[in-house]
Amino acid sequence: MTTATTVPDPGSLTPAAARAALRAGTRGPTSGWCVGYAQVNLIAVPVDWAYDVLLFCQRNPKPCPVLDVTDAGSARTVLAPDADLRTDLPGYRVWRDGVLTEQPTEVTTFWRDDLVCFLLGCSFTFDTALAEAWLPLRHVEQQCNVSMYTTNRQCRPAGRVHGPLVVSMRPIPNDLVDSAVRLTARMPSVHGAPVHTGDPAVLGIADLARPDFGDPVRAHADDVPVFWACGVTPQAAVVASRPPFAITHQPGQMFITDIPDTDYKIC
Amino acid sequence: MTTATTVPDPGSLTPAAARAALRAGTRGPTSGWCVGYAQVNLIAVPVDWAYDVLLFCQRNPKPCPVLDVTDAGSARTVLAPDADLRTDLPGYRVWRDGVLTEQPTEVTTFWRDDLVCFLLGCSFTFDTALAEAWLPLRHVEQQCNVSMYTTNRQCRPAGRVHGPLVVSMRPIPNDLVDSAVRLTARMPSVHGAPVHTGDPAVLGIADLARPDFGDPVRAHADDVPVFWACGVTPQAAVVASRPPFAITHQPGQMFITDIPDTDYKIC
Repeated sequence: MTTATTVPDPGSLTPAAARAALRAGTRGPTSGWCVGYAQVNLIAVPVDWAYDVLLFCQRNPKPCPVLDVTDAGSARTVLAPDADLRTDLPGYRVWRDGVLTEQPTEVTTFWRDDLVCFLLGCSFTFDTALAEAWLPLRHVEQQCNVSMYTTNRQCRPAGRVHGPLVVSMRPIPNDLVDSAVRLTARMPSVHGAPVHTGDPAVLGIADLARPDFGDPVRAHADDVPVFWACGVTPQAAVVASRPPFAITHQPGQMFITDIPDTDYKIC
Repeated sequence: MTTATTVPDPGSLTPAAARAALRAGTRGPTSGWCVGYAQVNLIAVPVDWAYDVLLFCQRNPKPCPVLDVTDAGSARTVLAPDADLRTDLPGYRVWRDGVLTEQPTEVTTFWRDDLVCFLLGCSFTFDTALAEAWLPLRHVEQQCNVSMYTTNRQCRPAGRVHGPLVVSMRPIPNDLVDSAVRLTARMPSVHGAPVHTGDPAVLGIADLARPDFGDPVRAHADDVPVFWACGVTPQAAVVASRPPFAITHQPGQMFITDIPDTDYKIC
């Protein structure tokens, strides 16, 4: 179980204030923080691997919608010009040859001049659209991280990069599933419509109560599990593909951008 | 003026039959061909330039929505598994150091084992959606190519690749402009909503009657010019960025895929 944040009312923070708090050492999942602003997944790899990762994202746009790519060595992004990608996330994962070796709170000492950062859309961004339409968000109600699962579906490979699809799951009341599909379909840059609704076994998920990432989320009696492609997919690809070095975010502990959610709403 | 096709009723052809006719030597713009199937832009560059081109596309998704990228040397695409990208377009352009040097009808003899093909969404794909909503398509009525213009807007550069935004223009009846915006917004993979409506001077276009690519299209009295980002943008980038070698399609003479238009409709 991830420790909850100590910041009061994180939902009303500006992105800059939230990043300052996170840079100063605040921890925990960022779901529900900075309501109305987009959050993104991070994966950084050496430039020698950047084409394969970018092509993997292009070939798998549902789990890996690319919102920005940095120039090699730069920790700056157009999604939040005053931010530093090395310090402004709550938690990071450092990977060597596909093995998770460190889980630091900032990566200044791990940084390399050849790193290219990929910032990928995150489903937390459409949580606001769901909440505004009166859909309950069980993970927000229960003040925990969303549940995420590695599936039995393989992504389309690209060069040296391959791996399985990872999904996030939200329990949605049965009579609101159509609204959830419709509202998220309009936001393809943050994973879009669900990849599956209902039986977890179809995705090879044995037990919803034991997520591979994040926390277990309790469903209500009339809830149906709805699965969206997830930006943790590149981390499963790191495990499978074994690049010599990579840095990612901690699942559910995202980079908070200055971009309004609505910028990613198609219609 | 591009010579019109000699194929009777090209709108009702299957994509495979259309590609066979084009492979056999049929010429001309493909607007209105194979109604209901997506058409795409082509740019092929040596693999050494592939990352910069892919990043340029990611950073400029309105003109350059990537629908597929081939592996180096391959002329096969998942968008039409039985097709050959070297022979199945009506016309090609060959570029050396940013200069247009040949305009062949097939590129088998120009092919190189290090070429990577990028297939980008084309606005012809949303013409069907516009026609189904009873919007008039002046270029189809006048049996000519759409008008395309190089604008005064620079794309966001990526590595060695930079250049101006190119747009296509459709004259739309004033009271149907809102429908045109709404319908195309739902198809972001084929350029999405317009980038501008009305005064061409805002985009630095001096004279609508003198397009940089394609044919002049006559507007009716109540028509307003509506401008969409265009997949000829990479050709302007080839001119500006001077890669040692590139192959593109002839503007308006597209690769016809097996993918239904509706696959690119978000909602």
